[in-house]
Amino acid sequence: MRLQDVGEISIIESVRRRSRYLNNVVIGIGDDAAAVTWKNGWLQLLTTDLLVEGVHFLRDRISMRDLGYKSLAVNLSDIAAMGGIPRYALVSLGLPGDLKTAGLREFYEGMYELADAYSVDIVGGDLSSSPFIIINLALTGEVEESQILRQDRAQVGDLVAVTGALGGSAAGLATLLTPELSLPSETIERVLAFHDRPHPRLREGRILAKSGMVNAAKDISDGLGKECITIAQSSRKGVIIWADRLPIITETKQVAERMKVDSLDFALNGGEDYELLFTFSAANLQQLKELTREENMDFTVIGEIVAEDLCYQIVDSEGQHRPLKAKGYNHFQ
Amino acid sequence: MRLQDVGEISIIESVRRRSRYLNNVVIGIGDDAAAVTWKNGWLQLLTTDLLVEGVHFLRDRISMRDLGYKSLAVNLSDIAAMGGIPRYALVSLGLPGDLKTAGLREFYEGMYELADAYSVDIVGGDLSSSPFIIINLALTGEVEESQILRQDRAQVGDLVAVTGALGGSAAGLATLLTPELSLPSETIERVLAFHDRPHPRLREGRILAKSGMVNAAKDISDGLGKECITIAQSSRKGVIIWADRLPIITETKQVAERMKVDSLDFALNGGEDYELLFTFSAANLQQLKELTREENMDFTVIGEIVAEDLCYQIVDSEGQHRPLKAKGYNHFQ
Repeated sequence: MRLQDVGEISIIESVRRRSRYLNNVVIGIGDDAAAVTWKNGWLQLLTTDLLVEGVHFLRDRISMRDLGYKSLAVNLSDIAAMGGIPRYALVSLGLPGDLKTAGLREFYEGMYELADAYSVDIVGGDLSSSPFIIINLALTGEVEESQILRQDRAQVGDLVAVTGALGGSAAGLATLLTPELSLPSETIERVLAFHDRPHPRLREGRILAKSGMVNAAKDISDGLGKECITIAQSSRKGVIIWADRLPIITETKQVAERMKVDSLDFALNGGEDYELLFTFSAANLQQLKELTREENMDFTVIGEIVAEDLCYQIVDSEGQHRPLKAKGYNHFQ
Repeated sequence: MRLQDVGEISIIESVRRRSRYLNNVVIGIGDDAAAVTWKNGWLQLLTTDLLVEGVHFLRDRISMRDLGYKSLAVNLSDIAAMGGIPRYALVSLGLPGDLKTAGLREFYEGMYELADAYSVDIVGGDLSSSPFIIINLALTGEVEESQILRQDRAQVGDLVAVTGALGGSAAGLATLLTPELSLPSETIERVLAFHDRPHPRLREGRILAKSGMVNAAKDISDGLGKECITIAQSSRKGVIIWADRLPIITETKQVAERMKVDSLDFALNGGEDYELLFTFSAANLQQLKELTREENMDFTVIGEIVAEDLCYQIVDSEGQHRPLKAKGYNHFQ
């Protein structure tokens, strides 16, 4: 058996099953970040993300500045998904010898732009030569033990909601891969910005954590459908997504129309939106709406948590149910 | 200008110069690990290491089990160099789809062998497809603020010492790269063990930290010469190494003899020995000897810290001085 025969999810599951914790690990392998005991009611969060040229990005389709920005953004998003405050970053780079030193400078400038905005310190790293660009960031954060957001506590009767709007990053990727679409340049610019410079929802993660009303949360790195299933599965529940409620970015609809595909597919399976996906008791809807409005934060209800035996479903605008699939990017398949 | 035109040291130096710290960073970019304020007189240590197939290892020359072991060992060695206790690891893997699942299992078994021995928890990670194997570990640790070992506090009049013996890993690599040497299999096995399964000097790091006598320390990942220069340079001192005092592994001498090279070169420039290099006041030599003997720990004095204007020198057995060069592995050159 080879990795490509079993696929990413099964590999991670086998690693998770064999994991064992000797110290004060509150959340281990599987959630957006690990959480370990720290001090006075606070947990430390630990997360890492590996970006590989040719898999996660194409060198001639993203500026080094945006690459630096995005490398940190995807890690910050993991801390946001736990409701935490980011702190310290370690940056490992594998770089080809023929890369321009100016490119590396721009990479760090892009990363520091975001690091400074969120008071993150880049305290160390490692550097290696490599045939192509490899970027690995590890990031610490902190969150109150009583307020941490985790993926595995969704309850039957919860509503499922997302911050912002979906499908921007996938539409951006589509314009990169099919430049012959000849879309208006403003449309391309806007969807590319979602793809290259995702906005980590740290502020929203903190608001949700402090609300005390959120039962489960994740960031949308791998596609909404896959993340919904992960929340449901790890909570031992089912989930129903209402397709016509999904907030889809206007320009994404334009790209989808030009490509003659369903924009729902971008929103559901595209991935890399880095919005927050979260669940809370339907009884708290009004209260959460008021609280978030005061904080100038938007969210959209897109579905509900149901009993485990109802599995994972999506309901279209005609009321037709079909199975929700984890179609987000799956390494090795 | 390209990275290969400026070299690793200059790249790291430019990154370090532009770094800025907003939070409680005690040691930032440059030492074996970063140190940030933790709790009640303790600092948290943060370190990361990237291993790239074809650069750090060859897939057909190391078992997946040893690769897992070594990936953690090199990170543990960074914590040892700071006098710390290791805690939590994040493991990022880029893997080719045709890799056998059994290979990945062996990789984790090798890593857990060492993780269990030192009570390290593997709490998370990331997984990506990749054309070749990429391994990045990030590791946290902790150390008493008053006892941390750092590279930049060497004093004039300090003696320079190392744990264990040198040149094992480099000789192991040499037997891999020149199999036609036809050495006794026990010799090959022994030097390969140094190369594939380095022993992180965590116990020794703690003894040295607690002694309160060590002024500066590093682990020998890049070659003794380069590490001595780093200690001297970051402490704004000079260093003199006494060539005939270097403890060289017996089998390394055999390999060097067969290859008709000077075994001193393996010991001085080979790298990946993962022994500890440290300095302490000559006045404390007897006391440190007694203390370490009680703990069943060995070390060898190999040189002295001198004034900065004496630069970096090595003295051979005839008393001839020549400049000490940072010949350890230099990425991009």
